Amino acid sequence: MIQAIEAAISERGGRIVRWTGDDAAVVHARPLAVTSIDTVVDGVHFDTATHSPEDIGWKALATALSDLAAMGADTGEAYVSLVLPAEYEGALGLVRGMEALAERCETTLAGGDVVSGPALTVTVAVTGWAEHEDELVGRDGARPGDLVAVTGELGGSEAGRLMLAGEGGAASDLERALVGRHLRPLPRLAEGRALAAAGAHAMIDLSDGLATDARHVAERSGVRLVVRLEAVPTAPGVSPEQAVTGGDDYELLVTVPRERREAAEGAAKLTWVGEVSAGSGLVVLGPDGPLAALRGYEHA
Amino acid sequence: MIQAIEAAISERGGRIVRWTGDDAAVVHARPLAVTSIDTVVDGVHFDTATHSPEDIGWKALATALSDLAAMGADTGEAYVSLVLPAEYEGALGLVRGMEALAERCETTLAGGDVVSGPALTVTVAVTGWAEHEDELVGRDGARPGDLVAVTGELGGSEAGRLMLAGEGGAASDLERALVGRHLRPLPRLAEGRALAAAGAHAMIDLSDGLATDARHVAERSGVRLVVRLEAVPTAPGVSPEQAVTGGDDYELLVTVPRERREAAEGAAKLTWVGEVSAGSGLVVLGPDGPLAALRGYEHA
Repeated sequence: MIQAIEAAISERGGRIVRWTGDDAAVVHARPLAVTSIDTVVDGVHFDTATHSPEDIGWKALATALSDLAAMGADTGEAYVSLVLPAEYEGALGLVRGMEALAERCETTLAGGDVVSGPALTVTVAVTGWAEHEDELVGRDGARPGDLVAVTGELGGSEAGRLMLAGEGGAASDLERALVGRHLRPLPRLAEGRALAAAGAHAMIDLSDGLATDARHVAERSGVRLVVRLEAVPTAPGVSPEQAVTGGDDYELLVTVPRERREAAEGAAKLTWVGEVSAGSGLVVLGPDGPLAALRGYEHA
Repeated sequence: MIQAIEAAISERGGRIVRWTGDDAAVVHARPLAVTSIDTVVDGVHFDTATHSPEDIGWKALATALSDLAAMGADTGEAYVSLVLPAEYEGALGLVRGMEALAERCETTLAGGDVVSGPALTVTVAVTGWAEHEDELVGRDGARPGDLVAVTGELGGSEAGRLMLAGEGGAASDLERALVGRHLRPLPRLAEGRALAAAGAHAMIDLSDGLATDARHVAERSGVRLVVRLEAVPTAPGVSPEQAVTGGDDYELLVTVPRERREAAEGAAKLTWVGEVSAGSGLVVLGPDGPLAALRGYEHA
């Protein structure tokens, strides 16, 4: 099986010195290594009843790459660990789904481990690269006066998840599109790099829902984020409340100094949803004033 | 809990630019990144009935660092994913056990993920560093005429595991030492670097047992390894057969050109166990000639 996996993957980016068949992979580094590790577990983050092996592989890699997008880093290598139940036959399909996204995102599946265990579990450690610290954006740079924007439309993944879990399945094109958003999210890598270059102050990917992730930016930056509910871009058929609490969209939330507004608009398709002020925490303004504390869907 | 974990870990090596609290860790790279990922699962690779949380954390990191040792790389950063069952209360102890080994091995626990799931599962991705390719040693460099050596004594970990699994437990100092070898293996990092610098041709860490791992070197190098059973250094109370089939020792097996024999002996405490010849596969020579194919303990 290891041989079949190795046959299914290709090298990209020209950094690989050693990979399959040694104790560790060796790659030519660039000055800054940007690394994140993420795990998804059957029954917690996905469901083998509704996710094909290819979907699971794609999503596991997307989740990890989205963290590189949120830093503004270039992609690089992914290291993949699979815990496989004895009866699971989807391992190769899972790797192929992952490789399909890796190809789209100029990433090499450079190393891995395959072990047995009771629940299908996929861990992906991704390393991206940058030349200088000022190419990268953290969660801690938001400043009073910044404008707040998001990429894409929110809430689609959670709506798709509910559709998958429901009885009827996805009947219409719209429903299938939402399910697709849930099964095959696309990390916003190009947008993240361009927003960083355009002078974004802070950035985060929306994995747990805006209501949770925007709070992370506020806390790390020591500021208040104010988001107008009516301004939040919603996926078709999704309410604004669902859009700010639904997780797994993997869009980016960014804060931008006012003078970089146009540069940011040139970097990515954005919707301006609020602003940064002195204070703390997240305030979501509804039609009748601040809403009671909303929390995003948080990963178990 | 994330905060308690963050409070338990320290930065080492001076490479960290960003770590806790962002979407990804950022570290200053050196020219070559050497990365391996390893997963251990409760009931497969360890047993919470006999392994303390500290033991599990230590061993999970040791397993990953041992791959860096086998390449001759310097240590660097570890990225850790924990899958925690709802009832498991050892997460912080696990991180502390890992941090204790990280401190000993000049490694920083630079990032991680914590999720819930049915079985305690620990994945560690480690990145080590090197300046030049010729500092690193793969599995593929063994050449006919090389001498074969191992560090340390073999079979102790498997003997300790059997003792832990048995009724009596470890009664004597000797038995406790074997159990310690199983619970807290020490990756041979300094030895790996020194053997690489001394001109080793090929190197591998003994995770699955010499009978399996020496075969990996033979296959990758396109040569035959001949090992004399009587020459294999055995842990106290362990037979030569147990020593070559027992796994989880995390000693190093190395092939060295004859003219570098003294340099290698100066680099690490070695026992010469055989030699490399033209041909293929592994031959273990017993007192009456070649033994029937032995296989090491292979990880599930």
